[in-house]
Parts: sequence; structure tokens; C-alpha cells
Amino acid sequence: MMVYNSSFRFSVSRILPSVRTVHTAPLKAANVKITGIKTPSQPKPNEQLVFGKTFTDHMLTVEWTKASGWGIPEIKPYGNLSLDPSACVFHYGFELFEGLKAYRTEDNKITMFRPDKNMERMNKSAARICLPTFDSEELIKLMGKLIQQDKHLVPEGKGYSLYIRPTLIGTTNALGVSTPDRALLYVITSPVGPYYKTGFKAVGLEATDYATRAWPGGCGDKKLGANYAPCILPQLQAAERGYQQNLWLFGPEKNITEVGTMNVFFAFKDSSTGKKELVTAPLDGTILEGVTRDSILALAREKLDPSEWNINERYYSINEVEERASKGELLEAFGSGTAAVVSPIKTIGWTGNDIDVPLLPGEQSGPLTKDIAKWIADIQYGRVSHGNWSRIVADLNTDAI
Amino acid sequence: MMVYNSSFRFSVSRILPSVRTVHTAPLKAANVKITGIKTPSQPKPNEQLVFGKTFTDHMLTVEWTKASGWGIPEIKPYGNLSLDPSACVFHYGFELFEGLKAYRTEDNKITMFRPDKNMERMNKSAARICLPTFDSEELIKLMGKLIQQDKHLVPEGKGYSLYIRPTLIGTTNALGVSTPDRALLYVITSPVGPYYKTGFKAVGLEATDYATRAWPGGCGDKKLGANYAPCILPQLQAAERGYQQNLWLFGPEKNITEVGTMNVFFAFKDSSTGKKELVTAPLDGTILEGVTRDSILALAREKLDPSEWNINERYYSINEVEERASKGELLEAFGSGTAAVVSPIKTIGWTGNDIDVPLLPGEQSGPLTKDIAKWIADIQYGRVSHGNWSRIVADLNTDAI
Repeated sequence: MMVYNSSFRFSVSRILPSVRTVHTAPLKAANVKITGIKTPSQPKPNEQLVFGKTFTDHMLTVEWTKASGWGIPEIKPYGNLSLDPSACVFHYGFELFEGLKAYRTEDNKITMFRPDKNMERMNKSAARICLPTFDSEELIKLMGKLIQQDKHLVPEGKGYSLYIRPTLIGTTNALGVSTPDRALLYVITSPVGPYYKTGFKAVGLEATDYATRAWPGGCGDKKLGANYAPCILPQLQAAERGYQQNLWLFGPEKNITEVGTMNVFFAFKDSSTGKKELVTAPLDGTILEGVTRDSILALAREKLDPSEWNINERYYSINEVEERASKGELLEAFGSGTAAVVSPIKTIGWTGNDIDVPLLPGEQSGPLTKDIAKWIADIQYGRVSHGNWSRIVADLNTDAI
Repeated sequence: MMVYNSSFRFSVSRILPSVRTVHTAPLKAANVKITGIKTPSQPKPNEQLVFGKTFTDHMLTVEWTKASGWGIPEIKPYGNLSLDPSACVFHYGFELFEGLKAYRTEDNKITMFRPDKNMERMNKSAARICLPTFDSEELIKLMGKLIQQDKHLVPEGKGYSLYIRPTLIGTTNALGVSTPDRALLYVITSPVGPYYKTGFKAVGLEATDYATRAWPGGCGDKKLGANYAPCILPQLQAAERGYQQNLWLFGPEKNITEVGTMNVFFAFKDSSTGKKELVTAPLDGTILEGVTRDSILALAREKLDPSEWNINERYYSINEVEERASKGELLEAFGSGTAAVVSPIKTIGWTGNDIDVPLLPGEQSGPLTKDIAKWIADIQYGRVSHGNWSRIVADLNTDAI
């Protein structure tokens, strides 16, 4: 049994206020300077959109310095960044990002889905690696202005959306390893199609214990560049053995943590009581605080009958999954994330055997996975409203929002 | 007791050869294209050199693509990199580096210290995050040519050197997380002064168990950008409590792993037998494979009398250090790395108390630390030869090498 209690976990709140300069300029959306492109581009046909390879005409950039704080936000034509080769982003991993989407609703408005959650996480990521934080609402406003600038490029149709990529990098030009005194915040946007073009395609996973994605006292709960490159080689290794993604295990208990670059959920049914359970790992500092994860938990608690379902954030291991599958208690499993929303799982390779995950007859997901995908899509595309989860950023019927 | 055996560790050798394309152009130093600066700059006065902020006139760049392999190496005037904002180096931590030094010897030659070790490690780092590997000897030749181009800027004097920073970044322009199909290898160089301008200055460390630098199955043994940014906040926190650096502990055993961005050594004396021991953590996948660490182990094994000294790579904990300090068995402690060579330690804060590390009376290091610094400097500055550790790359007496 591996022992790590709460004192072993890493707390950003330990940092004392004096560490960060406070009397510098805050991020202000009202200061934005907009330089439009001469000839706006025409939207590409939907079938030509490739995730994260097609970009819109404009980008947002804001420089920050320790001495002055946040500079003038600029919306300007999409173009290269020019950086000194000693910039700390190239050497020491001073980089973090977010991923969220804007949707064209049926009444021709453009909405962002829960941008406040992404901004909250982006600020936590920034604090974790000593990059500057900012007022979330100001960056939401700026993203809105950026989307308005390119609103004709937000694609239309089921499953289509505008992927938004806020990024924050350290730009100090010096090889000493220290707190960056310069940074660049930028946002680029990419029109994207549905993750599953022709309906779900369930994936096969390799349960992975020889490589570790995240650990207590590390930064696996933050959306840092540092968490991604090291996961490619294990994915290639799993692919060589016929699996698309890694199911990341942790510790001697082989606890299930995440899948690929997504959170992961399992559904079980207790064969003695008949009670069902939807389960995902708890946010203990090793799990990315996924916005889709949070949305699924909230919706499941609202919509599933509590006499039938328990919704739990708890530790559970590959051994439990294996044992419950053998007893017929494993109902479904799926990854969750912004790109795919939900990604059904059909099989899990573990110690030379495959654990089969049930799917609906002739289909590529279980019934709960399908319901969850619909619950979320209905909110994202404005067919159903849910508190403040959808925020209107542009109205294609008028020029104002 | 935390259990992680060899199967728990991460092996690059698990990757099958088919994963990487092999029939593309290798890195070839002979293909180099040199574009000299119009007006070479004058050397700055030694006292104005700041580590990693002053750079020489030229840089080396080589592009790589999956389709074609390594392109033409170019030595050209130092200048900005121009990269698409979607380049994977900005988002997913596809970046790694090396740090080594060139020295002006007393007979006016310029030598690099053990560049083969750095190149070996750089290739291991590249393989770990699926960036392209290369023939080490070719990059050593190219670094030699770069140094020759700026040889008048290699500073002269005790403790002065040219810091060399080879860097490899992924430059694929796409937001999908996958193996980079484009990369940029570049080398910049910075004339630097001695780490300790007026002799050693011993440091105080905070033994840190609330943040964890590296983990089995992670990549803490590689020189990846991912390992650096997350360590700044714990350093600021230690600084708020009056300590310059973190002494990184691992696991419930509180094993000592590294200090700040350096390897770390402790010297003990057994009070019953009188036998002394120089100890550092073993290379178990969580410890950076330091070139200075390796050099110190090799020199200690050559020079210290084995009837007096044991030289051990083994696990040892902060509890052992605390206990042995209380018995008067703690002799010395120092960090090791390219920048400082050795960095003496005077105190270690642990659970509210300070463990004092002995220093020579009126001095800022112990006697072994001082000897080791001299052994290495003698080789680096060409006063003593040691196998192939020093490689001549330029001769200031002639134009040829």
C-alpha cells in the first residue's frame, strides 16, 4: 500500500502573497486594439476541416512583463511568433494552454461552453508554474471579440464547432532557470468537425503501469505542456500492441486515473442489489480538472434516478474493473474531454488479456454514454438551456451581440 | 515501504524499430552552410558577463522533417526564431536541451568537456519524447564549427568559459497531440563567468517532500523542459522560508534525490570503523544522468584511497542524514552540475530544524568538495589530461584546429 496523505500533496496556497508583484496593469478587454485582415477568408467546406490544422483569420495576443503587468490586447491577422532562441518557453517548459469550443446555435447565435471553468483552470495552471494570472472575465470578453471578428468562420452543422486555444508562454530571454519576467498570452481558433464523423467508434485501451502520467506533488492536474510530450511514447508502444490509447494506472494499487489525454468514467452494476454506479477518479492532484468531467458529474446527478444510480468520485483499480467484468458487473466505460465530449471504450488490455466492455447490440457505445453525449450536445447547441453554461458571444442575425 | 520494481520503470527499448522512419537524411556536419556576421562583436569585459544573457554572434540551426530527415546545418547570425503559434513546442512540451561548456586552455586552445556524454543524453531525451535522434559525433563537429566561428568571444580567465546550449524543439503546426513530424535543432552559446566569483558560497536547502520533482515511469532522468517549470514554485516557497534551493525527497522513505537543478552528493564517516563514504542516488530513472555527477564518481574512484573511502550509488534518506549528523558522522554535502561544477551545502531545513553540514574553519566548503572542484577544473582548463574528456575544437594560435 503506497502511503501519501494530504501533507504529501502540493498546495499552491502555500505561496505567500509577497512573491508576486501586485501593483501592475491588469488584463483589460476594453483596451483591445483590433487590426482586421484586408480580405477575410471564405469558410472551408465542412469536410475539409481538420482538427487544429485550419485556423481562422485572426489571433489575440497580449504581452505581460513583471515591471508593467498586462499590455494592450491585440486582435490581429494570424501570423508567426518571433522569439529569441533563449526564450524560456523553449527550454524549461514555461507553457500552458486551454481548450474550449464555441458553437453555432440553431437560432444563429455563437456561444462558448462554460468558459469560466476553463479560465479558472488556466489561472491555476499559470500560478503553478509562476506565469502571470489574470481576471478570467476579461479574457472571456477578449475571446468573444476574437470570435466576433471571425464569426463567419464558425462552422455550421451537427458536431461542428470552433475550437478555441488560449495559450500562455514564458518569454524571458535568459538561460537561468527562474521565474519568468515576461510572458505572452495568445488565443488562436480552429474550425473543427465532429470527433466521430459517422457516429461513435469505440476504442481499445492498454492499461499502462510501466509509464506514469502524473503523481502526488507533481502537476498532472494542471494543463501544462509538461504533461503531454512524455505521454506520446507510451501511446506508440500501446499502438504497436494494437491499442489506440493508454489507460493510465497509478501506484501499486493500479488505480485508474485517466485515458490518453482525457478523464475516464466507468459504470458498474452491483449484481446483488441491482444498484448502478457511475465512477471516476477523485481530484486528488493527479487528475486533470476536466470541464467535461465536471459537466458529466453534474448532469448525471441531476438526471439519473438516485434510487437506481450512485454517482461517485472515488479510487478504483484495474483489478476491480477486471473482477467486476468477470462477474458481469461492468456496464460501460468512456473517456471525456472537450474534443470528443465522450469517447466510448470497447476493450482494455491488461496483463496479456482483454477485458471486454459491453456495447449496445450493433452499436459503438453503451446506453449511458449515448445519453450523456446527447445531454451535453443539447446544451452546447442551444436546444436546452442549463444555467450559465452557454455564454452568447456573437449573434449572426445582427452585428451586435 | 513504496514498492516499485524494475517492471515499473520505463524502458525506451520497449519501442519497436518500426515506429521511427529510418531511410531519411542523417545529420551531416560536412553539409554545413556558414553565413558569417558582417561585423564581429568585441568581447564584453569579463565582469559584464551574466550567465545565459549574453550570447555570441552566431547560432547553429538544423531543421528536421519526418519525410526528409535532417536538413542542411546552418551557422548564421544569432537571431529570432519565427514559429507558427500552433507549433507543438508551445503547447505540449516537445522540447529538450543540453548544457555543456568550452574552455580556453592555458596554451590557447579551446576545448569542450565530455561532449560525447551530453550528446548521448540528448539522444536519450529526444527518444523519450519522440523527437528525432542523430549521430552524436556530427553534432559535436557542428558545435566545434560554431565555436570556431566565435572563438574570439570565448572568455579568458579562471572560471570563465563558453556555455553551450543545444536545444531541440518540435515544430509541427497542429493542435492534435501526436508525434512531431517537424523539429528544429539549434545551438546558442553564452560567454560566462565563474559561478562563484569570490570563492564558494555554501547554500541552505529546504528538504522538500510536499512537491515531487520526478517519479518512476516519468521522465525525470531526461533533460526535458517538462522537468523545470514545475520546480520554480517550490523554490520560491523554500526561499520565503529562507532557503535557496529544494533538496528533493522521494517517497515515504524520504529518499534524497537531487538538489534544485543539480545532482547531490553526501560524505559520511562511520564512527565505529573510521571509514568514509561518498554517496549519491542511483540512476533509477528518477535521477538526471549528470555529466558532472559521472565525472565526480569516476575521479573519486580513481583518486580516493579505497582503504579510506567507499564510493557508493545507493538510496539514502533525509532521516539517515539527520541521524548521522547528530552522531557527528556527516562530513560534507554538495550539489553537482555543469554551471557550478560543485556547490557546497551548509544547512538543510527539515521538519522545522536545521541540519548543519560541516565546513572547513572560516571557509565555505568541506575539504573533499574543494578537492573535487580542483580535479575537474584542472582537466577542463587543460592543466591535467584525462583520457578523452577534453576535446579540442579550436586553436587560437592558428586558424586551423
